[in-house]
Amino acid sequence: MIETPYLLFLGDAPDQLAAKVAQGIKDWRPEHAVGQFRLEGCKADLGLKDMDLAAAKAAGARTLVIGVANRGGVISQAWKKVLVAALEEGFDLASGLHNLLRDEPELVAVAEACGRSLHDVRVPEVDYPIANGKKRSGKRCLAVGTDCSVGKMYTSLAMDKEMKARGLKSSFRATGQTGILITGDGVPLDAVVADFMAGSIEWLTPDNDADHWDMIEGQGSLFHVSYSGVTMALIHGGQPDALILSHEPTRTHMRGLPDYALPSLEQLRDTALPLARIANPDCQVVGISVNTAAMGEDEAMACLDEIEKRMGLPAADPFRQGAGKLVDALAAM
Amino acid sequence: MIETPYLLFLGDAPDQLAAKVAQGIKDWRPEHAVGQFRLEGCKADLGLKDMDLAAAKAAGARTLVIGVANRGGVISQAWKKVLVAALEEGFDLASGLHNLLRDEPELVAVAEACGRSLHDVRVPEVDYPIANGKKRSGKRCLAVGTDCSVGKMYTSLAMDKEMKARGLKSSFRATGQTGILITGDGVPLDAVVADFMAGSIEWLTPDNDADHWDMIEGQGSLFHVSYSGVTMALIHGGQPDALILSHEPTRTHMRGLPDYALPSLEQLRDTALPLARIANPDCQVVGISVNTAAMGEDEAMACLDEIEKRMGLPAADPFRQGAGKLVDALAAM
Repeated sequence: MIETPYLLFLGDAPDQLAAKVAQGIKDWRPEHAVGQFRLEGCKADLGLKDMDLAAAKAAGARTLVIGVANRGGVISQAWKKVLVAALEEGFDLASGLHNLLRDEPELVAVAEACGRSLHDVRVPEVDYPIANGKKRSGKRCLAVGTDCSVGKMYTSLAMDKEMKARGLKSSFRATGQTGILITGDGVPLDAVVADFMAGSIEWLTPDNDADHWDMIEGQGSLFHVSYSGVTMALIHGGQPDALILSHEPTRTHMRGLPDYALPSLEQLRDTALPLARIANPDCQVVGISVNTAAMGEDEAMACLDEIEKRMGLPAADPFRQGAGKLVDALAAM
Repeated sequence: MIETPYLLFLGDAPDQLAAKVAQGIKDWRPEHAVGQFRLEGCKADLGLKDMDLAAAKAAGARTLVIGVANRGGVISQAWKKVLVAALEEGFDLASGLHNLLRDEPELVAVAEACGRSLHDVRVPEVDYPIANGKKRSGKRCLAVGTDCSVGKMYTSLAMDKEMKARGLKSSFRATGQTGILITGDGVPLDAVVADFMAGSIEWLTPDNDADHWDMIEGQGSLFHVSYSGVTMALIHGGQPDALILSHEPTRTHMRGLPDYALPSLEQLRDTALPLARIANPDCQVVGISVNTAAMGEDEAMACLDEIEKRMGLPAADPFRQGAGKLVDALAAM
């Protein structure tokens, strides 16, 4: 569990895209984003107040989050100076970098001396159990995709936001590094040891109030041969009551696999639902989330309309339109 | 890669069952089993020649394999004395124990001093790639089960043996600790990090002669919610040309999951085959392996007959009858 709120470290980001993790935190958990810390030459700007460490501390920030990719995969001396100072000022550090904070002896030594924590969100911090498959109280919704990176995390975050706006009980349950940094907690599923994958998702989505929904962040795709095992573990560990099908209609092949065509939404439905019903016989497919970012407004609306008619299910682009329609579908269950 | 042949260490096994890994090596790779090493009070006997370290060395043994469970999960002083002496005599050590050899400082120190290797087959020794899904040359056969522990490893070993007896090209590809100790190589799939599961199976079953078959050891079951992700990774990483359905007809619920009924063989076929065809559109279900150990001869034959008629596929118990019928089915493809 990463202590919030955050000071978002943008370093010397070469452009706005390099700071997309920080952007995600600011977009989805603005209450966690006290300010931004930028080094000279930083080309990203979240529109947050620029703060030094002392100002952020005074504003209540508890953790400095590295919300930016590092150039060349090295934690530079310029960065390290700030990270050390932050530990000395009483901040914890959290990072999704490939190079781990814990592999930097200087940071480890200072953190220990100052009694602060280093959170590398790519690495599991918990000994997860083996899944027991027992029915849990409360409700769970999982987005499953025709491919990787089609907007599953965005869909779950948007649905969680809409649920909360309606005064309904909802928790976003992160299963990837960006999601974990956004919400401060979660399971880095792609780094969990095989035997414990499903158990980690049971751990992440425990018994809850009967009217509470976990919005579980999806990973991979049953149709993506590199990661389908991870998706399978999410479906069985999450024992979802509701599935959202996620799709990006302009993609021409599976991400990173040029020889693999995308499945149709019908194939995804007919594959995912029977598998989900092994763990939860009452599971239903309730809606479709379509990432229309590559389309103009008219084309996007026509695409959504066609999918909705063809599949007989509500279809929405939660980025373009909000997640109201998808949350309506959950509420109607 | 564990150096063969082996001296099989049975320790102070309280009964024959405790030595089942050693028994598996002796049954399936008798040419790897030079002799057995027993401590006082050992109640297991493989029918191999009892040898001390010097005699085994003279007979060509390269690795001392701990083919027995340890009492109380502790590597005792009596064991350690033998293990240290073995390293000093020039043996490598291989173990499938939960306590790792590498966590015993004395063994690590002696191994280093003597230039010997410690193989803990529960722990991956390779940095596996992420699966790329590319079509590989050669053929692959995978056993998929209605449940865990229904005889998938036995089926693959028996088919591999029958293939070799017919002069056909075949390799048993181990994915679990017993299989790895039997064959000296493999992937401890349940201990591989999620993102690399399918890639580890691609690594294990590389390009090969067009008429060569990999007999891939199955794990878990698509219907076992604790381990289904592991099974999924095997199906997509293995890109099998042939599936064998494995079943234990007397089981009343999924292993360890009292609330979960077993699927029918039809359900297994209809679930596994479309998933397998994502990675290999030519995949076929070619036969059924039935573990009839809990049945008398007449009952077993009637059961096999019924399954064969119902499913329209050859059905055999490879332990009771040999794997001839299943290999015939492969040859007929």
